[in-house]
Amino acid sequence: MMYGRYTQELGVFAKEEAARLRESGQRRSVTERSRALDLLEYEKGRCAKCRRSGYPYVLEAPAQDFISVCTVRCQKFLISRVGEDWIFLVLLGLVMAMVSWVMDFCIAICLQAQKWMYGGLDSNVLLQYLAWVTYPVVLITFSAGFTQILAPQAVGSGIPEMKTILRGVVLKEYLTFKTFVAKVIGLTCALGSGMPLGKEGPFVHIASLCAAVLSRFMSLFGGIYENESRNTEMLAAACAVGVGCCFAAPIGGVLFSIEVTSTFFAVRNYWRGFFAATFSAFIFRVLAVWNKDEENITALFKTRFRLDFPFDLQELPAFAVIGIASGFGGALFVYLNRLIVQFMRKQKAINKFLMKKRLLYPALVTLLISTLTFPPGFGQFMAGKLTQAESLVTLLDNRTWAKQGIAEEFDYIGHSQAWKHPEVNVFVTLVIFIVMKFWMSALATTIPVPCGAFMPVFVIGAAFGRLVGESMAAWFPDGIHTDGTIYPIVPGGYAVVGAAALAGAVTHTVSTAVIVFELTGQISHILPVMIAVILANAVAQSLQPSLYDSIIRIKKLPYLPELGWGHHEKYNIRVEDIMVRDVRYITLNCCYRDLHNVLLTEHLKTLALVESAESMILLGSIERAQLQLLLSQQLGRPRRLEYIRKQAVAEKKRLSVLSNPSSEDSSPRASQEVRFQISTEESSANPTRPVLQKPLKPALKRSSGVERPTEMPTGPQNNSGIALKNLFCASPVTEGLEIAEWEEKQLDEQVNFNNCKIDPAPFQLVERTSLHKTHTIFSLLGLDHAYVTSIGRLIGVVSLKELRKAIEGSVTVKGVKVRPPLASFRDSGTSSSENEATELHKLWDHHKSMSLPREHTPSASDEKSQ
Amino acid sequence: MMYGRYTQELGVFAKEEAARLRESGQRRSVTERSRALDLLEYEKGRCAKCRRSGYPYVLEAPAQDFISVCTVRCQKFLISRVGEDWIFLVLLGLVMAMVSWVMDFCIAICLQAQKWMYGGLDSNVLLQYLAWVTYPVVLITFSAGFTQILAPQAVGSGIPEMKTILRGVVLKEYLTFKTFVAKVIGLTCALGSGMPLGKEGPFVHIASLCAAVLSRFMSLFGGIYENESRNTEMLAAACAVGVGCCFAAPIGGVLFSIEVTSTFFAVRNYWRGFFAATFSAFIFRVLAVWNKDEENITALFKTRFRLDFPFDLQELPAFAVIGIASGFGGALFVYLNRLIVQFMRKQKAINKFLMKKRLLYPALVTLLISTLTFPPGFGQFMAGKLTQAESLVTLLDNRTWAKQGIAEEFDYIGHSQAWKHPEVNVFVTLVIFIVMKFWMSALATTIPVPCGAFMPVFVIGAAFGRLVGESMAAWFPDGIHTDGTIYPIVPGGYAVVGAAALAGAVTHTVSTAVIVFELTGQISHILPVMIAVILANAVAQSLQPSLYDSIIRIKKLPYLPELGWGHHEKYNIRVEDIMVRDVRYITLNCCYRDLHNVLLTEHLKTLALVESAESMILLGSIERAQLQLLLSQQLGRPRRLEYIRKQAVAEKKRLSVLSNPSSEDSSPRASQEVRFQISTEESSANPTRPVLQKPLKPALKRSSGVERPTEMPTGPQNNSGIALKNLFCASPVTEGLEIAEWEEKQLDEQVNFNNCKIDPAPFQLVERTSLHKTHTIFSLLGLDHAYVTSIGRLIGVVSLKELRKAIEGSVTVKGVKVRPPLASFRDSGTSSSENEATELHKLWDHHKSMSLPREHTPSASDEKSQ
Repeated sequence: MMYGRYTQELGVFAKEEAARLRESGQRRSVTERSRALDLLEYEKGRCAKCRRSGYPYVLEAPAQDFISVCTVRCQKFLISRVGEDWIFLVLLGLVMAMVSWVMDFCIAICLQAQKWMYGGLDSNVLLQYLAWVTYPVVLITFSAGFTQILAPQAVGSGIPEMKTILRGVVLKEYLTFKTFVAKVIGLTCALGSGMPLGKEGPFVHIASLCAAVLSRFMSLFGGIYENESRNTEMLAAACAVGVGCCFAAPIGGVLFSIEVTSTFFAVRNYWRGFFAATFSAFIFRVLAVWNKDEENITALFKTRFRLDFPFDLQELPAFAVIGIASGFGGALFVYLNRLIVQFMRKQKAINKFLMKKRLLYPALVTLLISTLTFPPGFGQFMAGKLTQAESLVTLLDNRTWAKQGIAEEFDYIGHSQAWKHPEVNVFVTLVIFIVMKFWMSALATTIPVPCGAFMPVFVIGAAFGRLVGESMAAWFPDGIHTDGTIYPIVPGGYAVVGAAALAGAVTHTVSTAVIVFELTGQISHILPVMIAVILANAVAQSLQPSLYDSIIRIKKLPYLPELGWGHHEKYNIRVEDIMVRDVRYITLNCCYRDLHNVLLTEHLKTLALVESAESMILLGSIERAQLQLLLSQQLGRPRRLEYIRKQAVAEKKRLSVLSNPSSEDSSPRASQEVRFQISTEESSANPTRPVLQKPLKPALKRSSGVERPTEMPTGPQNNSGIALKNLFCASPVTEGLEIAEWEEKQLDEQVNFNNCKIDPAPFQLVERTSLHKTHTIFSLLGLDHAYVTSIGRLIGVVSLKELRKAIEGSVTVKGVKVRPPLASFRDSGTSSSENEATELHKLWDHHKSMSLPREHTPSASDEKSQ
Repeated sequence: MMYGRYTQELGVFAKEEAARLRESGQRRSVTERSRALDLLEYEKGRCAKCRRSGYPYVLEAPAQDFISVCTVRCQKFLISRVGEDWIFLVLLGLVMAMVSWVMDFCIAICLQAQKWMYGGLDSNVLLQYLAWVTYPVVLITFSAGFTQILAPQAVGSGIPEMKTILRGVVLKEYLTFKTFVAKVIGLTCALGSGMPLGKEGPFVHIASLCAAVLSRFMSLFGGIYENESRNTEMLAAACAVGVGCCFAAPIGGVLFSIEVTSTFFAVRNYWRGFFAATFSAFIFRVLAVWNKDEENITALFKTRFRLDFPFDLQELPAFAVIGIASGFGGALFVYLNRLIVQFMRKQKAINKFLMKKRLLYPALVTLLISTLTFPPGFGQFMAGKLTQAESLVTLLDNRTWAKQGIAEEFDYIGHSQAWKHPEVNVFVTLVIFIVMKFWMSALATTIPVPCGAFMPVFVIGAAFGRLVGESMAAWFPDGIHTDGTIYPIVPGGYAVVGAAALAGAVTHTVSTAVIVFELTGQISHILPVMIAVILANAVAQSLQPSLYDSIIRIKKLPYLPELGWGHHEKYNIRVEDIMVRDVRYITLNCCYRDLHNVLLTEHLKTLALVESAESMILLGSIERAQLQLLLSQQLGRPRRLEYIRKQAVAEKKRLSVLSNPSSEDSSPRASQEVRFQISTEESSANPTRPVLQKPLKPALKRSSGVERPTEMPTGPQNNSGIALKNLFCASPVTEGLEIAEWEEKQLDEQVNFNNCKIDPAPFQLVERTSLHKTHTIFSLLGLDHAYVTSIGRLIGVVSLKELRKAIEGSVTVKGVKVRPPLASFRDSGTSSSENEATELHKLWDHHKSMSLPREHTPSASDEKSQ
């Protein structure tokens, strides 16, 4: 036995030596690179000079040289700097601010156009109606069709997908330039239609798309952009940018994106998010100032509540009521949304019809909603002519609408006039608005266009808060304060609280509070907002999943549900209760036949590699594709051809013994080769061999011929796979028997893992790891599966599926709680050492018993591996 | 070979069966428990009734019964609910709010007392000076002495320690009730002295202490509080509560505590933090309202900047300048603080003197600082008579002090008068204030009392911002805005920006921005604040570690430095470059002698357990204490006694054969035992055996006699360790030879790991794991070390030390960058499969070669293990 020592001095010496070598190496590479760059730049400079025909001889030669040198230096400097994070973040922020601003601009124009059309046709109500209805129908239908054709991935909010991607799952086509274009244009049209749709969710997706595209573009300059973990970090920052530049709310954006997309958040990414989101929000607002929309950088929906006494302590119960009611409302919204989607899916008749005419559903929904909001019609009872932004501005107004319950006393000006109806009380208007908008928003968000639900929910929450506030103002016209001073109640403050609470309840986030502060530019209501948001979250989280989790479940994305809080059982369930004990594995000295069998019976992406079936010591995991590659190499074309060639040579020799050869050696061999190749191609088109029903060999052929192409992942293996397929069906009938024999022999050979990529340290858990810890580890590391080992021996596997089942079983609130078995037979406190001892004892016994048969095996495996 | 199947149906059946069993079991346990409770309650109720002698017969018997039943039910309900998270969080928030409020109250009284003394003695300057100076000296000295005696762990901020604890390191005595008391009282005295010390850092520690104590108290009610991972989650929430109830800033508190204490943050903890911090902040402020200090719940340092036009876009460069300057200032502060500490340590003469008189240093520093701030003396030039809070209020004032550069024009009222000096410009006052407070704060935070640096830095930053703002106001008396409207510059806004920027620079956090908004109750300056904070962070982070990291380094706590951002190399360094290849291990079939040798030469806490020295397949890791236990069991008293008894019996038999025995069997044996025991105690006092210089056996004795006690961890092993020690030196000279022989034999036996706790899945890395990923995993899982394996074979180990070295080598900004060797010999993009193939090849060859000797070993090991 050897016991090593930390050879400190040796390590230091090696480091110094390496540093010296590295420095010289770096210097060399830098100089080489700069030389190459100089050359490139020089040539480019020449070309540019030639092309600049207008004033080529104005500058003298030295000046030109100086300029070109400067350009080269600048460019070199830029290229060296382009790998820095902050350059990327600044670019991302800049681009997203532009996109956001341009989109807002286009949306505003669209909405103005509708108003203009509607206003211009006020002579004829029918024409007016047609104009009011046709415009959104056309826009939504275009948006749905456009996204459907260009990139169906752009449909919906995108936050659920981002959540899944950030968990480490690769969703193809969700981060392409095509999707970016589809999402931007589709979203602009959808929001321009005036439907109750939001911008926030899609913006998170757009920002991520932008980051992915930008990262791909930047990778032209340096290799750093090819690093995967860095890209994930950048995606996390991009999500923050998306919210930040959508609402001009950098802090709230960062927090919201963390809460919505991550399970575990690296604090070092925090900084990136803040930087990019602030820059983006800044540019977004500066663009508005430059465009003379605003005089200065301010909040989007600025409020002007009084600072000295924003609310009374005695009003807090009202705020708490708003919070609790919003919690129920939020859960109802999520439930309603899911119900609509599931109803549309289950109704087969409707479904079939809609599948044929894909654009009919969006058109019908839009027609329904816009008919109901038609201002001269039902819309007059629900402020139908206001856009979302306009409603929000009026709802957050700091004046009271209803004094003493009589609406007439209020001096309605500007947009607020829409809330006033000559015959109907303002309370009724608000109630109708809330109820109608509630189901409309839930319905509208199911339309297959890029859209979010945050903003509609936010507006509904504001309306609800306003309703409570107006009621309070009517109830206590002189305010609640007991002292002599009169502080009238501010219903606008209630609207702020309601908006934050309902948005928080639907999305299960607390950071809506921060978003609200940044949106309104006032933090005076921090306490009521925080109380209401927390209460709303507590209620909503105990009733329904968040909207995004709900969509994840509907779309069946590979997700891992959150552990609820306060469920004690989760600390008591252990991995051994939920793991699959019957693991598929391959052994280090297995033969190709075993490999083949595993591939046939098993459809997992990765397989465990153990030392031997007796010891079960886990050595690593191998991807399925790698095994397929191994198998195809063993039975593949080159070896087969070589075998045939050898056979042919042997045959020829035999023949040459029988009859004296007259021709040369080389030409017949070549022709023979050609003949085989031709026959290969022929037979691949017409498989002449009859399909046998014997278990092993023909199964291989069928599987490799039928199953392989569907499962073969893209990559270098693909070619060999096809070659293999050709070959398998290739052997002419005449040589069938020989080939079959050869195949049998090949299958019995021991697998040579030398050229195989093995993951040598797949994640391992122990039987006694708690569900809580397992969940933490899975979400921290973004695992798909983990092997359960006991002192090195593979005894089980836990995949996302088992974990999800266990969590849903113990955490889900409706339906029967299926707790994993065995969890209840055990106390949480007793991690007794007897248990561990017995386990080791088992291993020990096992080890002893297994060491006996090993005496025989090595010689056999040695022979095989020779 | 066996390939299993997922027996889905079987699993479902098992689950159902288990659920059925579990339910019945639970029902039974619940009923049993409630019955026990009933009994308890009944008895208690009787006792209570008896004791209530005043009015025992007023209530009728049925009513009494009803009440007692109600009490029982309530109590049962409470006990069942007490395990819920939110109960704990509410309690924590409540307690912390109380503590914070009471402390603030006491501090205010202390400060008022000083002012009153100072004011009352205005006839005599000398007496005034003595009063001004003595008061803080006494308080600080008392604080230092009190914490020194009660709990030295309470000294300092506590955030570095919390950071370390949340990383998973157990720091003893840092979370005890004693420390809690010491910290609370020490902090109150320290802050009451008026020194430039802060409350935030210690409050994070106090809240964590409170959570730990509360958790221990609550564990009396239910087992859930014994869960370790839950306690860590609660500690994270407690940190948020600490900041939240210190500044009445729940959102900022949560964010600040995340940034300061965590590397990775679980979003599910987020909610807990928000809930507890909001509740705590609410109670904290409500207490102030109830105490009639305030009329309503408002921000602590409320500002009243105008809402319509808080700042002009063209003022942004000035804000950026504040940010950059604050960045340099923050780095300088951290550097200065460290310099002072290191200077005090290096100066041996000073050090010796101070060590003797521990309270001299605090007293001297306090004397110096309070002399300089003496208002009639030098203090008149730096607003010396204002407390920290008062200075902050005046600095954030929204009026301009200097109009046209002439200070006289300003109408100084209230505390602001302190800034006015008849002969000196207000700019000079501000500059003196900044410079003096800067070094004073850096010096004061090195005093060994509970104190933080956040608040002093915050005030300095505000003063710097004010200085810039006043300069701007003097420069542009009519504001910058180009339109006709005059918007004068608000220096108070600059002060807000400066405070956030400097505090952010010193602590390396962005969330100071949020804290500032919550402290001032206005979010109008969000953009300048964010820009300044981000710039300050960028500058400070590239120059110095954060104050807390700096303290961690000074205190040499087991920490893991953050990866800098934008350093590409970290993606390029791999585990194989930094790992220690020479791992200490023990094999499954090693003998006790090997164990003993390892324990002698090795001082690591855990040791790797491999299958055999040839295969090197990692089976798990064993703690050092476990191995010591094993060894002591093998050579321990019981076995030794048994051996001696057997020897004695054999001897007696031999004797009985020689001479016929006349006495009984039992009494001599007993006396013999007693003799041995007595001799044991004798010889442990006077080791009579000569120390031999032979390599193995005596080394064992010396080590067990000398080294063991110093290294022996507390716990059950301790007893056996001592017993072992006694025994080792125990054997009387007469039987020395026999015992030595016996020991030799015992040492040659194979180790029986059956009764040994083994961690069967220690964390494993691969050679090609990048430094970036390694860092992530270490900080995510709070690892101390990880084994590096290659296809199951142990090839190296990486501990926190190596990782720290590697990160500091590649990331540190000053000094020589020592990049790990080998990192530069490789391209980042080429994870070539040849590499992996060759590695596997090596293993393969190794496997073959090792399978031969194995043929011989099993039989030997089998014999041994029998």
